[in-house]
Amino acid sequence: MARTIDQANAEACGELWTADPILVDIQSVGEAVPGFTPTTILTSGPRQEWGEYEGGQRAAIIGGALFEGLAKDEDEAAALIVRGDIKVAPCHEYDCVGSLAGIYTASMPVLIVDNANGKKNRAFCNFYEGTNPRRLNYGVYDEGVRERLLHVQNTVAPVVRDAVRISGGIRLKPIMQRALHMGDELHSRNTAASLLFTRELIPSLLQLAEKERERVDQAVRALTADHYFFLRLSMATAKAMADAAHGVEGSTVVTAMSFNCRQFAIRVSGLGDEWYTGPLPVVEASLFAGHTPEEITWMGGESTIIETIGLGGFAQAAAFPLQAYQGGSPEVMIANNKKMYDIVVGEHPDFKIPFFGYRGTPSGIDLRKVLETGTAPIMNIGIAGRNGGQIGAGVVRAHLGCFESASSAYRHKYKRIKP
Amino acid sequence: MARTIDQANAEACGELWTADPILVDIQSVGEAVPGFTPTTILTSGPRQEWGEYEGGQRAAIIGGALFEGLAKDEDEAAALIVRGDIKVAPCHEYDCVGSLAGIYTASMPVLIVDNANGKKNRAFCNFYEGTNPRRLNYGVYDEGVRERLLHVQNTVAPVVRDAVRISGGIRLKPIMQRALHMGDELHSRNTAASLLFTRELIPSLLQLAEKERERVDQAVRALTADHYFFLRLSMATAKAMADAAHGVEGSTVVTAMSFNCRQFAIRVSGLGDEWYTGPLPVVEASLFAGHTPEEITWMGGESTIIETIGLGGFAQAAAFPLQAYQGGSPEVMIANNKKMYDIVVGEHPDFKIPFFGYRGTPSGIDLRKVLETGTAPIMNIGIAGRNGGQIGAGVVRAHLGCFESASSAYRHKYKRIKP
Repeated sequence: MARTIDQANAEACGELWTADPILVDIQSVGEAVPGFTPTTILTSGPRQEWGEYEGGQRAAIIGGALFEGLAKDEDEAAALIVRGDIKVAPCHEYDCVGSLAGIYTASMPVLIVDNANGKKNRAFCNFYEGTNPRRLNYGVYDEGVRERLLHVQNTVAPVVRDAVRISGGIRLKPIMQRALHMGDELHSRNTAASLLFTRELIPSLLQLAEKERERVDQAVRALTADHYFFLRLSMATAKAMADAAHGVEGSTVVTAMSFNCRQFAIRVSGLGDEWYTGPLPVVEASLFAGHTPEEITWMGGESTIIETIGLGGFAQAAAFPLQAYQGGSPEVMIANNKKMYDIVVGEHPDFKIPFFGYRGTPSGIDLRKVLETGTAPIMNIGIAGRNGGQIGAGVVRAHLGCFESASSAYRHKYKRIKP
Repeated sequence: MARTIDQANAEACGELWTADPILVDIQSVGEAVPGFTPTTILTSGPRQEWGEYEGGQRAAIIGGALFEGLAKDEDEAAALIVRGDIKVAPCHEYDCVGSLAGIYTASMPVLIVDNANGKKNRAFCNFYEGTNPRRLNYGVYDEGVRERLLHVQNTVAPVVRDAVRISGGIRLKPIMQRALHMGDELHSRNTAASLLFTRELIPSLLQLAEKERERVDQAVRALTADHYFFLRLSMATAKAMADAAHGVEGSTVVTAMSFNCRQFAIRVSGLGDEWYTGPLPVVEASLFAGHTPEEITWMGGESTIIETIGLGGFAQAAAFPLQAYQGGSPEVMIANNKKMYDIVVGEHPDFKIPFFGYRGTPSGIDLRKVLETGTAPIMNIGIAGRNGGQIGAGVVRAHLGCFESASSAYRHKYKRIKP
């Protein structure tokens, strides 16, 4: 029966590897995301009761309610959530993927990414808030955060939207392929991808500039000011690819990894929409000046969808410059990256690592191999501080608990198959 | 007396390392380059008699005369050169630096780069001809080459000129610092630098687009179509930096390396404008499909000014993607790069290699150390074919002959100093 699992995994990885995600449009969350109501708020990680959200993730959800004008203060927001008049739900249940706390409210703009191949599925991600480490997705909401969110909503997103519409859609995989050859691993480093994406938009931006240069100029600043504009496109692409691989009967391929403030969780292709949860991972962090390890806190995160498809921590040997951001050394990055080949179905046919002689990245995490080898997926993430805001970046290793839960569910569901 | 040489070299490298090259304008060669007459043609490498120019370099010089309208056919061009009515001269004598055959004629546009620090010297480089491997600087002149040169002259250069003028000048060193962290070594790979340079121009390009979008659009295509637009800026920057280090009494720092079709040559900071010549180097090439090693030919080249300042072959561990272009493996690139630390004065304070834990690139080639260690500088270059055009790329090792000639000249000039 092992043949059957391998066949199922080959099918899942076939979908994963041939997906062709295209940025087709930008709309408001309320317009674009099916089932989203004016009083819905999405957040990262597996579903929890409201009382279980704590710290920065709770602050971010309440901040979302205030930003959206659903409540006049924190107390009212919390009361409305308790009453069910504001509905808090997981991003993944709405084809969205959350960066850190991952807050989506109805008026926010979302990147709409369609997989032009296979399943023709659609994924969403909202916009990067900008360079300032105080951000809603890092559990902060104040006048500055609000202004920056409105700048994204009223200036950056409309220009990018108009440019994308003029362009007829932007294929994202070729940008990511090239970026891997330019020092990006597409999770904690998106420097080249942001520039390459901007380059694709330039002809359309020039056309727009004939009418409204000032706004286009500001949008270009947002696109290229630092290393992370493309992160949300990388996440939406990864979500579109991973979802393409989801739902293959008998497959042990992991199709999502995500956090909330209390737990780490995975989904598995052959196990439906269930999340298998376990303890939070161990983190090796490099903190920005002035911060201490005691401040490190968890407030959710679904950007690890990028590792799920074989980038980020699974492609870190493409991104030695990351040492300066998240610590480590080239030697450790190489060793960590190589180890990931032990737990995957195969090598990505399009995403290649120059330092490994253009070997494909390890892709298609196989639940069986994680447990057989005892090797946990490695993920490159941003680190949030106790008082909100980003305080650093680092490398985390998943706890094996959720893989064990998934394996036992697999044995239960597929009684005649030994996973 | 060894102390004196070390002091002289520290002074030379001080100029090299603190130079701050800025792209200040684009003008025609005739307007910009002091002493250039309408009938001057510049070519790469140390001065030769006309009869010594052969193959592609001779073809390129004659092509330049035809392009400039100085002669109606090849025979007339050759006759005018023999009569001295067309004057052929080395690029370096005019503060220019030649890519491969390195042809400059009066109407061509040049990038004007000023060193804002120290010596306040100026350097020039003309424009990249574009992706097509058939180029004047690779010894080809036909209707297609002429059209592409005119496209650069009439569309690309004027737009970039206007954008540079609006911007008030573009600092080039910060672009190169960032590009080193994005897979470029700034000689055979300028992918990231071309995008980063374009990004700097975007605000000015948007302003220009209000009036003439079509031309701006075409210029952006030229800037970002492939990996090499920035090469000429990298060359002009390197020339500005190396010239800043030139002319320091007693210094054994190499300040230029260049080829013509017959010889390799160097200049040394403490030895004035004399070129010390020796045999052509040995090449390890990776050829484009359909070409054979028998076709490889020499037609000059001064882009090795980039290695002279500590980039290109001296920074190849920043650019593992280059395997795909010029062959080799990461292991060989690392070993070759490390070896260069044996022959230099020190580590560049601003140009860093992420793979070496952000160690500075080896910079300031010391004539003494080359001869003591018998280690020749390694250079990343484009390869020309016997019938003209680019047929590949590769790695070359300088022959030690010219270093020996320079050393003996040094002993002769500085009688009381043992080099």
